[in-house]
Amino acid sequence: MLHAIIMAGGSGTRFWPRSRRDRPKQLLRLAGERTMLQQTVDRVRSLVDRERILVVTGADQAAATAAQLEDLPAENIVSEPAPRDTAACVGLAAGLVARRDPEGVMIVMPADHVIEPPEAFHASIASALAIIAADPAALVTFGVMPTRPETGYGYIERGEPLEVEDGAIAHRVARFREKPDLETAKEFLSTGRFLWNAGIFVWRAAAILEELKTHRPLLAEGLELIIEAVGTDDFSETLERLFPTLERVPIDRAVLERSSKVVVVEAPYRWSDVGDWRALAAFLELDLAGNAVQGNVVARDSRDSILVSEEGGLVAVLGVEGLVVVQAGGAVLVARKDQLDQLKALVEKLSGAGHSAFL
Amino acid sequence: MLHAIIMAGGSGTRFWPRSRRDRPKQLLRLAGERTMLQQTVDRVRSLVDRERILVVTGADQAAATAAQLEDLPAENIVSEPAPRDTAACVGLAAGLVARRDPEGVMIVMPADHVIEPPEAFHASIASALAIIAADPAALVTFGVMPTRPETGYGYIERGEPLEVEDGAIAHRVARFREKPDLETAKEFLSTGRFLWNAGIFVWRAAAILEELKTHRPLLAEGLELIIEAVGTDDFSETLERLFPTLERVPIDRAVLERSSKVVVVEAPYRWSDVGDWRALAAFLELDLAGNAVQGNVVARDSRDSILVSEEGGLVAVLGVEGLVVVQAGGAVLVARKDQLDQLKALVEKLSGAGHSAFL
Repeated sequence: MLHAIIMAGGSGTRFWPRSRRDRPKQLLRLAGERTMLQQTVDRVRSLVDRERILVVTGADQAAATAAQLEDLPAENIVSEPAPRDTAACVGLAAGLVARRDPEGVMIVMPADHVIEPPEAFHASIASALAIIAADPAALVTFGVMPTRPETGYGYIERGEPLEVEDGAIAHRVARFREKPDLETAKEFLSTGRFLWNAGIFVWRAAAILEELKTHRPLLAEGLELIIEAVGTDDFSETLERLFPTLERVPIDRAVLERSSKVVVVEAPYRWSDVGDWRALAAFLELDLAGNAVQGNVVARDSRDSILVSEEGGLVAVLGVEGLVVVQAGGAVLVARKDQLDQLKALVEKLSGAGHSAFL
Repeated sequence: MLHAIIMAGGSGTRFWPRSRRDRPKQLLRLAGERTMLQQTVDRVRSLVDRERILVVTGADQAAATAAQLEDLPAENIVSEPAPRDTAACVGLAAGLVARRDPEGVMIVMPADHVIEPPEAFHASIASALAIIAADPAALVTFGVMPTRPETGYGYIERGEPLEVEDGAIAHRVARFREKPDLETAKEFLSTGRFLWNAGIFVWRAAAILEELKTHRPLLAEGLELIIEAVGTDDFSETLERLFPTLERVPIDRAVLERSSKVVVVEAPYRWSDVGDWRALAAFLELDLAGNAVQGNVVARDSRDSILVSEEGGLVAVLGVEGLVVVQAGGAVLVARKDQLDQLKALVEKLSGAGHSAFL
């Protein structure tokens, strides 16, 4: 049976002032009427029964997360006692799945990506399932064909081609590459052999647990102790006690970079991890002057800007160009688009300046 | 005895989004802890007893105006049934003063100017009173020595010098000139004979009424009918009925441009009519990068901008230059400083765009 694991643990400052400590990116309506988390659940609803959709989040976001997903069983919102990166998150979820359904297959995906259209996403999952049917040990990843020498993503180098019955483009993975510098990224782009790592995975729960045991035995052992307590009175206490002691490492580094079982399917969908306001602009309405707008906005003699107003507010611009203007929760950000990399530093400044209320 | 007439009838859009239809410029705390109206009253409080400070405002702003001036007698807030420009306003006030105090002298001033320091203002009033003591028919105006070829102000050309006992610089007025074009303004500046008309006047109520009768007989007659009704049960009805029929004309054009009694005293104070956000910036705190800031503002790598946040809000800027950013009442303005002349057009656009709530 198919299970979905939605990783909804992120916080981050790149959508400040809309994102706040208690309202991280995945809980926002950034593009569309539903939040990114809700859209992520919507995307798998036709493939996976609601009983088998697991959302893993942080303890301090669990309530807000559950409130956005009222049609999921409450026990399917799993709250991590402490953030331990994706290997522990995926391992815990795999353990939970395997206990209920030893042959279960899981789709793992972050709660804060944009993927369009859903039909193409569904087709890519079908390709992954076909690969796993042929090779139950396969760890299927998805790669996005790069369109620019992006230094903010990990890359996957394709190896031998793999035949998939539905004609999807798939390859064995030659190797994973962490975020490259600009020169390396340009080289990657020119070879045509490198794909962006979309951070979305499909595998049998038993398969990933097996690989974790091989490549991260201590982590696997800790997870086993937690999973053994599932269904007992000790579960909460065990999770609280052991989870924070697990190694903090991404699943890519812990397993995927080391395993020989990894396959990459070329994503047939439009994908973005929507890393900042500039990336979001591609998904917003454009006015005639090339401004990406959201909410109540009045622009005069202005172009090439990203203009976002919260419900009930108004953003009015006059004669501006190349700006990001965002109004949310009493705070206003006005930034030059090409300076957005400094947003994190700006937000960190708030606390020292006595403006913690806006964090 | 000395009376003060404060003209608080303006509305306008040049301080949008802080100024709104029901909260015009003079009712705002633009510079300092007190509103411009309150600062204007404060400025005359040591010269004029509170019983003799009259504030003339519009019917729809009377309540908000009175609320800011709780230590003035309620009947001293005079509400015009319709806006009829300054000749009718001054004439009405002169009639009210003359009725209570036939020999009364009145200071007339707008409620939305910045004048610093108050001591210099007081000295200028003393000079005016000395001139009137020597010539009871004199109409004293104040002129500001121009520092730039400003096209937004009226000018006063100096005539014969006039000796004042306290040594103030005063002249007969050769003529008034309305807002000039840029070339003319440059010429005015180069001659050294032209002063900006500060719009502040001192004269005997009887003297201005006399000149109104000479130069605007119909207007004077209408005012007389209204003044005759003061103290009777018919006053409100008479004011409501007749005031809106009075000629709509500035006191400058109605009387000052035509009268031979006009004297100009060179203002010994720093004066500004604070025409827009740029003009206000001169009175705000500057940060090290030359940003004029008010309220909660965090700036990174930004300069030469005007950054205004309302109480309880926050404005954060990143990498910007030469902008005006103002947050107020749910609305945000981001404008290039050199495009502020277009603000009126932008605000007018709001109504058509369904954003009347922000007007």
